Amino acid sequence: MSQIRKHYFLDEYCIIAPSRGKRPSDYLGDVLEKETSDCVFCKGYEEKTPPATAVYKNGQILQDSEKSRIKDWDIRCFPNLYPALAPNPAKVSNTEFQAMEGYGFHEVIVETPKHSRQIPDFTDNEILLLMKAYKEQVNYYQSLENIKYVSLFKNKGERAGASIAHTHSQLLALTVMPPRLKREIQTIKSSETCPYCNILVKECGSNRLLYRNEEFIVIAPFCSKVPYELWILPQRHIHHISDFTDDLLRFLGGAIRLSLSVLSNSIGDLPYNYMFYQLNDDPEYHFNVKIQPVTSIAAGFEKNTGIYINTMSPEKAVEQLKTNLL
Amino acid sequence: MSQIRKHYFLDEYCIIAPSRGKRPSDYLGDVLEKETSDCVFCKGYEEKTPPATAVYKNGQILQDSEKSRIKDWDIRCFPNLYPALAPNPAKVSNTEFQAMEGYGFHEVIVETPKHSRQIPDFTDNEILLLMKAYKEQVNYYQSLENIKYVSLFKNKGERAGASIAHTHSQLLALTVMPPRLKREIQTIKSSETCPYCNILVKECGSNRLLYRNEEFIVIAPFCSKVPYELWILPQRHIHHISDFTDDLLRFLGGAIRLSLSVLSNSIGDLPYNYMFYQLNDDPEYHFNVKIQPVTSIAAGFEKNTGIYINTMSPEKAVEQLKTNLL
Repeated sequence: MSQIRKHYFLDEYCIIAPSRGKRPSDYLGDVLEKETSDCVFCKGYEEKTPPATAVYKNGQILQDSEKSRIKDWDIRCFPNLYPALAPNPAKVSNTEFQAMEGYGFHEVIVETPKHSRQIPDFTDNEILLLMKAYKEQVNYYQSLENIKYVSLFKNKGERAGASIAHTHSQLLALTVMPPRLKREIQTIKSSETCPYCNILVKECGSNRLLYRNEEFIVIAPFCSKVPYELWILPQRHIHHISDFTDDLLRFLGGAIRLSLSVLSNSIGDLPYNYMFYQLNDDPEYHFNVKIQPVTSIAAGFEKNTGIYINTMSPEKAVEQLKTNLL
Repeated sequence: MSQIRKHYFLDEYCIIAPSRGKRPSDYLGDVLEKETSDCVFCKGYEEKTPPATAVYKNGQILQDSEKSRIKDWDIRCFPNLYPALAPNPAKVSNTEFQAMEGYGFHEVIVETPKHSRQIPDFTDNEILLLMKAYKEQVNYYQSLENIKYVSLFKNKGERAGASIAHTHSQLLALTVMPPRLKREIQTIKSSETCPYCNILVKECGSNRLLYRNEEFIVIAPFCSKVPYELWILPQRHIHHISDFTDDLLRFLGGAIRLSLSVLSNSIGDLPYNYMFYQLNDDPEYHFNVKIQPVTSIAAGFEKNTGIYINTMSPEKAVEQLKTNLL
């Protein structure tokens, strides 16, 4: 069972989760993928996972029962079999330093029943449904008692931390507010105008703008930590996905799909992470999604200083990516 | 040429260093190492690197000239051929967001002339000399004008960010104080007693204590971010390596060598980083070295929240490592 532990004296946390170490991996060595015949995320293998907490099918949201599994789904959400946090944690006996029981939720969102399909292949309806599922699942966990933050993210490829090749996202519902977001909102609250709104104004006309639709812009940020880092920002000030209309969800999905398509066309099937940043209780926050391809390693210098060495300027990245923009 | 860029509105920095992307690598794919016959860090290949800024040889510290290289050295320090920062940076023309020219120093410290030798193999004299070189090089760069922080670290193995297999450390001298250390010293200054001194008292008798010599303790910290993370702390409150006597350097080297030996005996030839944390101008700081083996990947969740999921408790790590302690 897991524990949330606080740093001796800094506002930092880690989750000690021994059972998560037992999860199997699709990846043998570095690039080889196991044969797909026994992928537990594929349609037809529903019995091999815990019962789904939400099954998106034909415009409805259903739930598995303990005994039977819903088939022929579009998107399927279920508790991670190797969770970092769980709703029934063991009590914490250690009291010398600060630790909390590992209470929380860790969910897998399987984005499609088809094993080899990737987000750039998604139809308009598929990507919209995924955004709707994101909104629904985040809202559900955010509404539970004691949940302070819901982390929604995607790991694609082994070097980005995925252990299963079948495309999926993950969600962790936490009882602690992540220090990273706490620091960010403090800075935002002490600013006269929203810093993200300022970025929109300045970057819209810059050589770091990759793409713009009616509602979102995609930029390679001036302070990119890694090559080809992309930020997706809504043009209007919205703090949380719960406020998104279907229209906004469609444009968000479009911006994510386009970004991943352009990256894939430009630099191939690189591993990447994308992360949703949003704060439920803070209207001052400005919702954003950050995409970070994994081309390099955060090494001793980054671990020592927190400063990232990035071998490609965002201006160069956008110049290159734009050649693959339709 | 590189640039130091500040985040749009947070106290975060990145170094945009395109020329560093051109560095060659010993690593083909993931584990294979190139043949060693053309390793530029080996003795006899001194002409293939920039002139050494410091050559440790027979108890002396010498310098290469532009035209000739000193042979038969013990430790050799020279500017990184693919530097993240350099003493002659280009001017920064962009003014819309905050950026500084990439001024600084990036040095390689080749720890031994022998290609296959690793720190656990070092004799008492070799490890002491390495610690002396660390002290000397850090002091030198710390004394230069405008240098705010000297980052000293080691990347071992490709997954830890090394591109050359021959054992070496690196040093970056920066004109910015790393935000990570700024936050830490702020917290320390607002504490009544040194938080690291408190850790020493509490962890000395805990099941997270791995090793103790006359001057240092080695612990797996309560809040370990990664499996087998180790912290090396001086038992007396010292803030910077410049205050270390030869005796202290010997005990520090002993603690580092022992930690790496035990790790290697327990979990094999794993990649790792170690980092020196110290603040020249802040006597309140408590010098420490952190060793982080690379067994996992900081993925979407860590990038979203700054919270690390660690699949092994430090108590379990110490229990296992202790079986390999002589």
